[in-house]
Amino acid sequence: MEIVIYIYHGMTMLDAIGPYEILRNLKDVNIKFVASKKGEITADSQFVHLNAKYEIDEIQKADILLIPGSTVGFIREMSDTKVLNWIKKINKTTSKTVTVCTGSLILSATGLLRGKKATSHWKPIEMLSRFGAIPTRERIVEDGKFITSAGVSAGIDMALYLASKLKGEKEAKAAQLVIEYDPHPMFQSGNILTAEADIIELSEMMLMNDAKKDFSILETYKNNAGD
Amino acid sequence: MEIVIYIYHGMTMLDAIGPYEILRNLKDVNIKFVASKKGEITADSQFVHLNAKYEIDEIQKADILLIPGSTVGFIREMSDTKVLNWIKKINKTTSKTVTVCTGSLILSATGLLRGKKATSHWKPIEMLSRFGAIPTRERIVEDGKFITSAGVSAGIDMALYLASKLKGEKEAKAAQLVIEYDPHPMFQSGNILTAEADIIELSEMMLMNDAKKDFSILETYKNNAGD
Repeated sequence: MEIVIYIYHGMTMLDAIGPYEILRNLKDVNIKFVASKKGEITADSQFVHLNAKYEIDEIQKADILLIPGSTVGFIREMSDTKVLNWIKKINKTTSKTVTVCTGSLILSATGLLRGKKATSHWKPIEMLSRFGAIPTRERIVEDGKFITSAGVSAGIDMALYLASKLKGEKEAKAAQLVIEYDPHPMFQSGNILTAEADIIELSEMMLMNDAKKDFSILETYKNNAGD
Repeated sequence: MEIVIYIYHGMTMLDAIGPYEILRNLKDVNIKFVASKKGEITADSQFVHLNAKYEIDEIQKADILLIPGSTVGFIREMSDTKVLNWIKKINKTTSKTVTVCTGSLILSATGLLRGKKATSHWKPIEMLSRFGAIPTRERIVEDGKFITSAGVSAGIDMALYLASKLKGEKEAKAAQLVIEYDPHPMFQSGNILTAEADIIELSEMMLMNDAKKDFSILETYKNNAGD
């Protein structure tokens, strides 16, 4: 089974690495990290760099396509026609096309989510409606062959669900045990619907820090904001 | 604040990327991914590759040192004198030295955990006693300046705790909200103490798959097993 994870500059690393760490432990799975061009991919934080061994021109099909999100990088991807056309092409060959965080916004920009329920990171989730998707504030949303998940860490929960669909409950549970995924966060502050107002305000400032690191993305956003 | 994450061939990516994704959102934090030599680092799965921009000879100090684990790669690291000496040197400068998964075994091989409680991945945790540490089956264990955490995904919980110690509860909670860390795994199979026997057996087979990918590590283990 071929799993393709699309990676790009400005991506949020955990969006890709969380699901990968569940999926990689399944039997007979091959995972390819694929970028527009081979070579180095820099995270939103600019602290960490992946090396893409494959580029999109080399990949014609996949059983699973996973699109991770980003704090602001997704805005650039949403207007990259070459990437959007490649996603549409690969999607024709997949059994499931899945996203984490703002990966759903990239997917929505292809038009494939039109009329479908989808989720995303809590901050930009309403942007889904711009491309005809139905914003749905849940951690995991499945509509047809598409599975979208909420922000960043939600991808781990999504991958566990996906693993159970692909390989059955027993393999999914074993993969969960391999990574000791028995979460016990000391705070209950990960849900926008219950988070305190001052925490929301501070987390919005944290999100802005990534935007400041990449002014070119803000320019793209400004130029597209009127359309 | 300088956070140094030591990376090495065969590492488990989520061990590093999980904590990083919490810590990177804190104010005035710089994170360096540091390897023995600059360049490409390949994960245990061999599916994904990080690019190290720093090497250990360039790093003389850190506020926080984080050592991720690996399925079998830690065995090689535990006998790499240059790496162990560097960890000891950096540890003299840190306020906290922290590990995820079998990163605690690497740290134990320096002798720094002698007489201290520590945790690790459920499979090799008893190896901690070989270097005088006290194996303690908990998700997060703090003893003096050392914080160790259980397998792979436990690093996210540890980082949230560390964030609250470093920057206070409010910043930690905001970082939690940025990554929507409101975990809802569909199965409760991530704890070795409650997992079913057939799930444990299957997850042990999954762990063995990484070992098979790197016979040289198994050789190292065989050569050291008698001591």
